Amino acid sequence: MTTPRPAHIGMDIGGTKTEALVLDADGQVEARISFPTEQGDEGVLGTAERAIAALCERSGRTLVDVSSVGIGIPGQVDHELGTVRHAYNIGIDELDLAARLQERIGLPVSLDNDVTAAAIGAAHLMELPGTTAYLNLGTGIAAGFVIDDQPLRGAHGITGEIGHLAIDPLGRPCPCGQTGCLETVASGSALKSFWHPDGDGRVLLADAAAGDPAAVEALSLLVTGAAAGIRLLVMTFDPHTLVIGGGLRMLGAPLLDGIRDTLDGWADASPFLASLGMSDRIRILPDGSPAAAVGAALSYRS
Amino acid sequence: MTTPRPAHIGMDIGGTKTEALVLDADGQVEARISFPTEQGDEGVLGTAERAIAALCERSGRTLVDVSSVGIGIPGQVDHELGTVRHAYNIGIDELDLAARLQERIGLPVSLDNDVTAAAIGAAHLMELPGTTAYLNLGTGIAAGFVIDDQPLRGAHGITGEIGHLAIDPLGRPCPCGQTGCLETVASGSALKSFWHPDGDGRVLLADAAAGDPAAVEALSLLVTGAAAGIRLLVMTFDPHTLVIGGGLRMLGAPLLDGIRDTLDGWADASPFLASLGMSDRIRILPDGSPAAAVGAALSYRS
Repeated sequence: MTTPRPAHIGMDIGGTKTEALVLDADGQVEARISFPTEQGDEGVLGTAERAIAALCERSGRTLVDVSSVGIGIPGQVDHELGTVRHAYNIGIDELDLAARLQERIGLPVSLDNDVTAAAIGAAHLMELPGTTAYLNLGTGIAAGFVIDDQPLRGAHGITGEIGHLAIDPLGRPCPCGQTGCLETVASGSALKSFWHPDGDGRVLLADAAAGDPAAVEALSLLVTGAAAGIRLLVMTFDPHTLVIGGGLRMLGAPLLDGIRDTLDGWADASPFLASLGMSDRIRILPDGSPAAAVGAALSYRS
Repeated sequence: MTTPRPAHIGMDIGGTKTEALVLDADGQVEARISFPTEQGDEGVLGTAERAIAALCERSGRTLVDVSSVGIGIPGQVDHELGTVRHAYNIGIDELDLAARLQERIGLPVSLDNDVTAAAIGAAHLMELPGTTAYLNLGTGIAAGFVIDDQPLRGAHGITGEIGHLAIDPLGRPCPCGQTGCLETVASGSALKSFWHPDGDGRVLLADAAAGDPAAVEALSLLVTGAAAGIRLLVMTFDPHTLVIGGGLRMLGAPLLDGIRDTLDGWADASPFLASLGMSDRIRILPDGSPAAAVGAALSYRS
């Protein structure tokens, strides 16, 4: 019987579901599972333990054949300390998740913000050199950054929190206490708060296509806001590649072509913006890509 | 006769003057000069040659005792290619400055954008660990970034061009073709364009102190715009330290206390912003610090 080469487990603990996988020593996905996230401190610890056990069973490994566990999780993550704060959508106020999970499983555990993990994973899976900015268009809007395969983690775990930049003259109130945050126009939560309580992307597209004025306006704000986020990322980070990920990207052409058209319209009005080649830098994260779980598995590298 | 240990020359070629210095092998400033910049391709090449000759004379070195020359210059700089574009305030449209200077002096020459060079120099001189964002409040407004002693240079030489983010509802026209750019409210050029053609910081302070409404408003816009730039930098880069540099910092307390008060006011209204500790991250570049020339001299490291 041969001992398998050591592998790395990565998981993306989200508000409703957890995606987890085993990455083998060559960086290939060996096994992959997905199940509901349990809420709260104990719920999240239990979810992580269950994911590890299920992956070991699925891949025929024991914990001895696993060299690290990486977790991507929403909220304010301190990678050095292995703590997460303010992950309200999974019922966590503050948790020393890395230390407590490590105690239970006896393996090194590292934490990253889920969007940073997705940025690491996207750069790896899409083989992107240089500087990558990853824009997550999901329930919220936020960004992650990778520079020459190294994530930018920043000082206080808030790198890429562009959703709470107050740049919109509509001045809608944001739960963060400011008004006019980018997240109040360009996010899944904006659709629910300001368009329709059951705000769903597919319904939005259907209603907008049928000419419903409120849906047309909500889609237009989403497109313009996302384009403003991209302009912001290009003019601060100047990335080689800007990857659009997150659930809203599944809206497809009405969103993505709309973003490109908006950026190109701005470029037509400004030689300076035109010189930036903004829309040429955009790539879309492929459907079903487990970027955040892969990025979490790879976080042992840095 | 002993041969001196090899040193590095750095210079900051600005719109009106060029600052140049020799950094010895221990990173200490050995000699420093300043003189007017000549305009245009040949003018800038001549300025650089004169600076090198003058520094050699001043420090008792010959070119044999110098191992590199680094230049910080305004405009869109391609560090890899050693080219600069759109440096209109020194009369350069496009110039392969590194190769042409290298040909004349027989030493390796590297180029950086002047704000990036200042960020490198500030992090070195102020001994700043981790991630540093450097905000230049001068004729324009722009930022440079250093992460663990490495500058962030980006893909197309426009890293930190936050001055042309269109975030101001006043919607003033900007020479770049957009409206409402941060630079139209928070820069020396904004003072000249929208307050007074001879717009000078000291006059602004005197007039504002005397209660002149236009001066009070111009100062208020400058303060609010600079604070918005800082909020933007904190929420994208999450830097350990944010250094304010550039000529306008010499306005002192009315600007700097104003910026801190504005940030603290925003934090009072938003628990999220309060948690970022924005004003605690601010440091001011010391008066007379040759940050850009030092950073240019150090650019051989990366």
